[in-house]
Amino acid sequence: MTDSARTDEYFLGLAIEQAQIGWDEGGVPIGAALVHDGEVLAVGRNRRVQMDSAIRHGETDCIEQAGRLRASIYRKSVLYTTLSPCFMCAGTALLYEIPRIVIGENRSFEKSESLLREYGVQVDVIDDPDCVRLMERMLAERPDLWLEDIGEEA
Amino acid sequence: MTDSARTDEYFLGLAIEQAQIGWDEGGVPIGAALVHDGEVLAVGRNRRVQMDSAIRHGETDCIEQAGRLRASIYRKSVLYTTLSPCFMCAGTALLYEIPRIVIGENRSFEKSESLLREYGVQVDVIDDPDCVRLMERMLAERPDLWLEDIGEEA
Repeated sequence: MTDSARTDEYFLGLAIEQAQIGWDEGGVPIGAALVHDGEVLAVGRNRRVQMDSAIRHGETDCIEQAGRLRASIYRKSVLYTTLSPCFMCAGTALLYEIPRIVIGENRSFEKSESLLREYGVQVDVIDDPDCVRLMERMLAERPDLWLEDIGEEA
Repeated sequence: MTDSARTDEYFLGLAIEQAQIGWDEGGVPIGAALVHDGEVLAVGRNRRVQMDSAIRHGETDCIEQAGRLRASIYRKSVLYTTLSPCFMCAGTALLYEIPRIVIGENRSFEKSESLLREYGVQVDVIDDPDCVRLMERMLAERPDLWLEDIGEEA
């Protein structure tokens, strides 16, 4: 494993930790981390259930936790997320011109990767087994909540 | 003026009211309203300053205020916004498959309209003078805050 792959694994691990916390809270197990120049600016997780929120996905929650940042910070940051972003989260990354997104897995959901790439975002999919397992359990045990989270009818 | 134009003007008026409140609070004067079948589900406004938020734009705040809704509700709703949506807000509308967005003005900002149309959203731009005035004042009096809000360097 290269150093940069090890680095990605480490930061993705922080996102997975958040996803696990979200699952244990009764929520949607998706987590994220925002990293600038090797420094973690924030971690976050989907809080649809926990905050009764329609906009707190893993990535948006993470970006909210990071607070108000200068444009130049976002533009040199990497967003780690356990699951391939929905359009809202992809759009948030485009708004702030986050140049790279590292995705844990995209087997259970994939909507925005071609859009992100079209706008010049580097999208790297790890296909991490822990991320896959989290979503497999979600789809099996909380299917209605999942459909709600992605705007589909339960 | 047709009945449907009058209806749009009325609901856009609620969004403008929110934008004005946001301006008076020291914030970014952009407001929104979510309307389902003639019923206002929620209004909202940009709360970057008020909540120290990186994700509470007019449209996302409005959708958050509306709470957790069934997919079928979003899919028959209209989102009114005083300013043409950024990618985050456009992506949020795409996530929930909101079929129509009525935009107060797009002179001061326009990024996502072609994307929205590409995904089948009906986008109607009113070019409302009150909306134009709100943003002209914003750009003149709070330019740094505006740049922050759209992910540009101040």
